[in-house]
Amino acid sequence: MTMRVPPGVTPSTFSAALEQFEKAVGRNWVFTSDDDMETYRDSYSPFWHEQADRIPSAAVAPDSVEQVQAVVRIANAYGIPLWTISTGKNLAYGGSSPALSGSVVCDLKRMDRIVEVNDKNHYALVEPGVSYFDLYRYIQEHRLRVWIDPPDPGWGSPVGNSLERGGGRTPMGDHFASVCGLEVVLASGEVMRTGMGALPGAQTWQQYKYGFGPYVDGLFSQSNFGIITKMGVWLMPEPEAYREGRVSVPKHDDLVPFVDTLSYLMNSHIVRGTMLLESPVLGYRQSQGGSVLDLPGGPSIAETEAIGREKNLAYWSMLLHFWGPPRVIDAQWEYTKEKFRAIPGASFQDGRAYGFPVELGETDNVQRVYLGIPNLSVFALIAGGQGHMDFSPIIPMTGEAVFEVLKVFGSAYAEMGVPPKNQFFALPWTFFPRSFVLLFGLPVTHNIEQNRENRKVFQRLVEVAAQHGWGEYRTHVAFMDLVRSVYSWNHHALGRLHETIKDAVDPNGILSPGKSGIWPRQLRRSRA
Amino acid sequence: MTMRVPPGVTPSTFSAALEQFEKAVGRNWVFTSDDDMETYRDSYSPFWHEQADRIPSAAVAPDSVEQVQAVVRIANAYGIPLWTISTGKNLAYGGSSPALSGSVVCDLKRMDRIVEVNDKNHYALVEPGVSYFDLYRYIQEHRLRVWIDPPDPGWGSPVGNSLERGGGRTPMGDHFASVCGLEVVLASGEVMRTGMGALPGAQTWQQYKYGFGPYVDGLFSQSNFGIITKMGVWLMPEPEAYREGRVSVPKHDDLVPFVDTLSYLMNSHIVRGTMLLESPVLGYRQSQGGSVLDLPGGPSIAETEAIGREKNLAYWSMLLHFWGPPRVIDAQWEYTKEKFRAIPGASFQDGRAYGFPVELGETDNVQRVYLGIPNLSVFALIAGGQGHMDFSPIIPMTGEAVFEVLKVFGSAYAEMGVPPKNQFFALPWTFFPRSFVLLFGLPVTHNIEQNRENRKVFQRLVEVAAQHGWGEYRTHVAFMDLVRSVYSWNHHALGRLHETIKDAVDPNGILSPGKSGIWPRQLRRSRA
Repeated sequence: MTMRVPPGVTPSTFSAALEQFEKAVGRNWVFTSDDDMETYRDSYSPFWHEQADRIPSAAVAPDSVEQVQAVVRIANAYGIPLWTISTGKNLAYGGSSPALSGSVVCDLKRMDRIVEVNDKNHYALVEPGVSYFDLYRYIQEHRLRVWIDPPDPGWGSPVGNSLERGGGRTPMGDHFASVCGLEVVLASGEVMRTGMGALPGAQTWQQYKYGFGPYVDGLFSQSNFGIITKMGVWLMPEPEAYREGRVSVPKHDDLVPFVDTLSYLMNSHIVRGTMLLESPVLGYRQSQGGSVLDLPGGPSIAETEAIGREKNLAYWSMLLHFWGPPRVIDAQWEYTKEKFRAIPGASFQDGRAYGFPVELGETDNVQRVYLGIPNLSVFALIAGGQGHMDFSPIIPMTGEAVFEVLKVFGSAYAEMGVPPKNQFFALPWTFFPRSFVLLFGLPVTHNIEQNRENRKVFQRLVEVAAQHGWGEYRTHVAFMDLVRSVYSWNHHALGRLHETIKDAVDPNGILSPGKSGIWPRQLRRSRA
Repeated sequence: MTMRVPPGVTPSTFSAALEQFEKAVGRNWVFTSDDDMETYRDSYSPFWHEQADRIPSAAVAPDSVEQVQAVVRIANAYGIPLWTISTGKNLAYGGSSPALSGSVVCDLKRMDRIVEVNDKNHYALVEPGVSYFDLYRYIQEHRLRVWIDPPDPGWGSPVGNSLERGGGRTPMGDHFASVCGLEVVLASGEVMRTGMGALPGAQTWQQYKYGFGPYVDGLFSQSNFGIITKMGVWLMPEPEAYREGRVSVPKHDDLVPFVDTLSYLMNSHIVRGTMLLESPVLGYRQSQGGSVLDLPGGPSIAETEAIGREKNLAYWSMLLHFWGPPRVIDAQWEYTKEKFRAIPGASFQDGRAYGFPVELGETDNVQRVYLGIPNLSVFALIAGGQGHMDFSPIIPMTGEAVFEVLKVFGSAYAEMGVPPKNQFFALPWTFFPRSFVLLFGLPVTHNIEQNRENRKVFQRLVEVAAQHGWGEYRTHVAFMDLVRSVYSWNHHALGRLHETIKDAVDPNGILSPGKSGIWPRQLRRSRA
């Protein structure tokens, strides 16, 4: 077997670096074998079995802040690119594979300490290797009255998911918004604390975000400017109760007042948490071989509404969620119905209701993420183990924007000649306040030709979205350069600021080269 | 009269720069006269009539992004420090006076365009010269159903107050948390848009904060890294109703469960907005010549509780605020009472209630900021036009922390020999989620000796707070170096990151030198 090496690094230099890594973290925690590298590949790679697939050259797993500092210093001395991961899988967004093939994965899974969970002020301080499962178990074992907000699936980490700016389902679903205080190992090997953590003996590191002077935490999200070794995360006090209610409206054009009402209720904090817009009639149309999208020459609105009347299917529908004291959430649901009743034909259905702490059986058919319980049930939705790569643009929270999306992506798929059964799409979610996000996966297969086709489709979707002013909130490692390229206002002014900061804080460019499309100076030159 | 010049700039160079400024913005918008400079002095300067008082050398008032770019390019070419202000007064935090005497004030008051107010998704896009009054009037004139969250007083600007991370009283009181999308002129003179604004033709610049890649908005708060020329700000949908309710508890130790309950209710979003902890019995003790603080040798808890019983005064009390549909806020208030009833002797009082839109008479005794109405009534509280400098540390949201604060500051004042009548202090506010902030002013007078004494007291309070892990969220221009100096974890690691970024994005150090204690490289050397 030939030794894999990072680009531009000689085998002898790399051997010397690996030896230093072993001294820093212990022999057992530096990995170089083919079998080990397999575990760091992207299981859902759209480049599966192609030359372009991203594969690390080695992995190093430090167990402490001091070991992370040592690893970074060695990487600086030997010019080794480090691709840092926490724990979990990051499936659909590139797994643990680096943007630059040959990078050494800096795997923080061993740093799994739960430093503190506070159920008076409702926060936790955790290391990157702590998974949502770990944190949930800790809270249960200590009988603390706080909820986490798990993404699906629950094997990810609060640190990884929050720094990727992922989302969950409860009122604390905007994960980056719940970050309070970071400990960061900088590319220099120095350790820094942000916010109130910059005050020695700080009493409010996890209670106040901003500290004094420029607030830098956002710099370390979707970023390669530092390695996070501790993170504060705000938790939700355990609510007394949860209930669901469904709202449905009959007509296509009802979506405009429907979303206006939703926006009013969400921005007034009467409706909270994450919801998915559904269309029973478009779902039916799809089940009959049609498309959810608005295809050129496809069925008219009137025809689709007629199907709805005939089959008794709403045009639009949404399951709403309420957390809090029973009398408050009952009042919120009553008021919600009152507001939606302004739309003629609106109908309502009470949903499940629970008090807490709740005892659930294994077979209870409930989306546990809404109850703050991490799980892996999302995998039941994925047929045959096929992977996917997620496309996730942000669009305005208006009915008009949804109509435009259905038309624009419908036309784009039609122009590409993609048949309806392969027109992957999902109606918008409310993962973040004040906007919708579309979120759907294009398949990743073990067929090279098909993967190439799907990559082309993905690229086209990104371009078409950008032409309409819609941009991805996050993307797969394979598409980071592409997505970055469309955020180009004034000759990529924001991207150039990112590069200026990158060069200043990581002059040797050792931290996660290519993350979010940000390359260090020497690699920008060679790629240009 | 001698010409004032920025430090290190010759009069002839400065004259040439002023000529260029005049070409860029028009002769009428460059100011150099003594009378003009008076208007940019800090009206509440603790250095009044002392050599150390900060006075600008000139002011320049651009009217457009292009003019700001031109001003920045000229400043770079001639080495002129620019101290940027928006509009309003920033009283108690340094007014419009620069940290570096002789800086040229870059006054953005002319940039007062309200680009957009959206009452479907509830946001505004404004320039820095737009005041809270301006935005409120615009909303009223256009009959839009949104509320602003004004600070007191209302002549400040959303841009200035939000970037200083100020606070208001409604559920949207954490002003920086409502920022969504910036347009920034960088020190290079280039203009950049953050978040989704980096996408040409962006449809969600004011609806989604983070964009793609590192999220940089926080970098431009309490900062000298760029000049903001447009800012998105989230607004609150006009609620149907508002009501108040007061909770009081009789005993000293009741504060612990009182704050735990408050924390639970706030973090559950059942109680929202900004509240002040009050103590009727400590207020009475103060009115009798005693102190609110816990002084060494002062009255015991038992003695103070006895006064409370005798005078029928609660030990602790708080006015809570509710915004929303009547049935929801009634349920929230009922639930709130139920939770506080767990404290023996807790009592409750219904407060004012309004439906919206509300018609208020000039004399209605209501704190209009809670109704989203900007005003200047706060000045009625200030006796004899005396100024003040605000001390505002963040402390934990626990009863124990309040007890410690009363003791620590009591001892500090006693050690300094400050008599009770000059022991300025206020109980904590809830301007920000998950923590308390103390907020009280030390007087600024026209007596140089007294100002010197008060500066010493201020300095001592900052030091004592830092020794206990409490740090200021914001400070007066005169104390920025001091406050920065206590945020020193790991040899000022965060401060050094700030400096690294400053040097990279503003290599000539022309933007607001000394802001938040961040000095450009050449001035760091001369100051060290």
